[in-house]
Amino acid sequence: MSYQVAVLAGDGIGPEVMAEARKVLREVEARFDLNIEYTQYDVGGIAIDNHGCPLPDATLKGCEAADAILFGSVGGPKWEKLPPNEQPERGALLPLRGHFELFCNLRPAKLHDGLEHMSPLRSDISARGFDVLCVRELTGGIYFGKPKGRQGEGENEEAFDTMRYSRREISRIARIAFEAARGRRKKVTSVDKANVLACSVLWRQVVEEVAVDFPDVELEHIYIDNATMQLLRRPDEFDVMLCSNLFGDILSDEIAMLTGSMGLLSSASMNSSGFGLFEPAGGSAPDIAGKGVANPVAQILSAALMLRHSLKQEEAASAIERAVSKALNSGYLTGELLSSDKRSEAKSTAEMGDFIANAI
Amino acid sequence: MSYQVAVLAGDGIGPEVMAEARKVLREVEARFDLNIEYTQYDVGGIAIDNHGCPLPDATLKGCEAADAILFGSVGGPKWEKLPPNEQPERGALLPLRGHFELFCNLRPAKLHDGLEHMSPLRSDISARGFDVLCVRELTGGIYFGKPKGRQGEGENEEAFDTMRYSRREISRIARIAFEAARGRRKKVTSVDKANVLACSVLWRQVVEEVAVDFPDVELEHIYIDNATMQLLRRPDEFDVMLCSNLFGDILSDEIAMLTGSMGLLSSASMNSSGFGLFEPAGGSAPDIAGKGVANPVAQILSAALMLRHSLKQEEAASAIERAVSKALNSGYLTGELLSSDKRSEAKSTAEMGDFIANAI
Ligand SMILES: CC(C)[C@H](C(=O)O)[C@@H](O)C(=O)O
Ligand SMILES: CC(C)[C@H](C(=O)O)[C@@H](O)C(=O)O
Repeated sequence: MSYQVAVLAGDGIGPEVMAEARKVLREVEARFDLNIEYTQYDVGGIAIDNHGCPLPDATLKGCEAADAILFGSVGGPKWEKLPPNEQPERGALLPLRGHFELFCNLRPAKLHDGLEHMSPLRSDISARGFDVLCVRELTGGIYFGKPKGRQGEGENEEAFDTMRYSRREISRIARIAFEAARGRRKKVTSVDKANVLACSVLWRQVVEEVAVDFPDVELEHIYIDNATMQLLRRPDEFDVMLCSNLFGDILSDEIAMLTGSMGLLSSASMNSSGFGLFEPAGGSAPDIAGKGVANPVAQILSAALMLRHSLKQEEAASAIERAVSKALNSGYLTGELLSSDKRSEAKSTAEMGDFIANAI
Repeated sequence: MSYQVAVLAGDGIGPEVMAEARKVLREVEARFDLNIEYTQYDVGGIAIDNHGCPLPDATLKGCEAADAILFGSVGGPKWEKLPPNEQPERGALLPLRGHFELFCNLRPAKLHDGLEHMSPLRSDISARGFDVLCVRELTGGIYFGKPKGRQGEGENEEAFDTMRYSRREISRIARIAFEAARGRRKKVTSVDKANVLACSVLWRQVVEEVAVDFPDVELEHIYIDNATMQLLRRPDEFDVMLCSNLFGDILSDEIAMLTGSMGLLSSASMNSSGFGLFEPAGGSAPDIAGKGVANPVAQILSAALMLRHSLKQEEAASAIERAVSKALNSGYLTGELLSSDKRSEAKSTAEMGDFIANAI
């Protein structure tokens, strides 16, 4: 099998963790006889520096020609003073999501055995563990709703954004959440604010309708404010959380932080034909870039998600995930996951990549 | 001095914790020579049962005639199946906020000395303590923005909400946050999503302008998704958090849960003439209603906030707060704040009220 992948490594630790993902992919290609061709493109801050904008045309064209996008991370202090919509993150990610209609965002987050102490949660809560999949709608809601802008003058000048959801948009993402729940613990928690938002009232209604086709999956509804709270008290009781664009943005970050190990989390953003963008959940971490200490696992797991969802190579994807588990379970870890008295055992970015590549 | 207070005890534990607040107020009135006249009105579920709607006209008229509203809590399983905007909470609180233009919502939350173990945070994080004041804009944004509704049919049927903020709305709430910070640790963290929302771009701009008048107060901006995360890792680094209506709803609940002692938290919702509604942060807790175990402290502290903000009786307010601290510091606690091996020492709702009233 032969595939084209657009590699958008970006800024900060992006390029160095991407190098490790490529190392692991090389092993997987050999073992599973895959032929993947990679083309690198500038994105984010480096694209601003080289081409004057965070998502150059050449990059977009390259992505169009590919079967999937393997994304690193973007942003850094150098570009922080730019106007919000010229900044690396927003200026690259939102147009990519919109252009390819990547409506389905999967953000899995679980507390790894042996890493419970990393969680900011109280030890008796983290001891119970948790494993949550956040299914976030990614191309609708208040992110893309029109009209959006400003009007008026002086004290009365006002800004406005529109949150907008159609039945079609809600049902296609709901269906994905229910299907995902079937392969997991068979529970969907739909997050909304139906006591305030018209969008949430429709959301709740459509989710109920979709649920009829999944009698084997339990459905519950929760308000976003309450969800934020319950995740702190009983994260283990959630399985799949189905969220609109804005609520998913907020909640998936809360859940990621609850694991305490952002360097292990990856996410998939896909459209209805399986094309997708795969990226680590964490940022470009400019403070540790270039030091060889960044954790490459999230980037490596992004490659696994790419193999599974866009390239339909489930076995290759699982092989990577098993290799990663082997590293973590044998205590093979980068520094940020070790308590201070064990920092001397920390593995470098390249050592992690080597170990995982060898374990394939 | 003579005042009129509208008492809206509501449902669940509302009436029983309100009785304790009244007990404490009686002592305060005697000691500080205040003349407060209380009139009770139905609100929430009980108002639906008695009058067919959660905020009857008589209740609204009664509030109009008063200097302040002392609110209990509303809602319960009996009314949960009603359409969202007929439900007790939404159907009472939103119209009251809108009608009296209660744009300023103060939600203080701190981790009490000796109650660190109640926090769902890891012990080394909760050991550092935290004391956050959430200043939430309460009558604008996506809660009240027009248009809001539905249109279209079939798959294309869509719902929409409008988030809308004017300079005037932003600057008046920002000013309150900066003033509050002056009396605290002199730091304002303004929460927004300026990388996505036009409202947030204006929000950030106006907050910067207001900040010029407060050179002694430090200002930082944070995205809502990042705020949700940083509160878990370093809650002690936040002082005043300035939020729009929706973000304040979400964040104030997260912070409240981080204290682990919702029964101690109260909130104030005020307009520009000092009129306000004062209520506990927790809900009506129907599961424990009528058992005499509910914690009355949040309701008692709501009375203190009412004395301070609407009745301008700072000394009386402080006297209540000191009496509450005395109870908590001497380990005089209701059951939910005690570890299971100490449950036998739990005080009843009435015992808490008596202790605090006597300590005035
Ligand atoms: C960079 C930003 C626009 C983006 C979002 O809000 O979706 C990010 O926070 C994310 O969650 O991927
Ligand atoms: C009941 C609901 C409408 C309300 C809100 O969203 O503001 C509540 O959650 C609150 O925070 O006071």
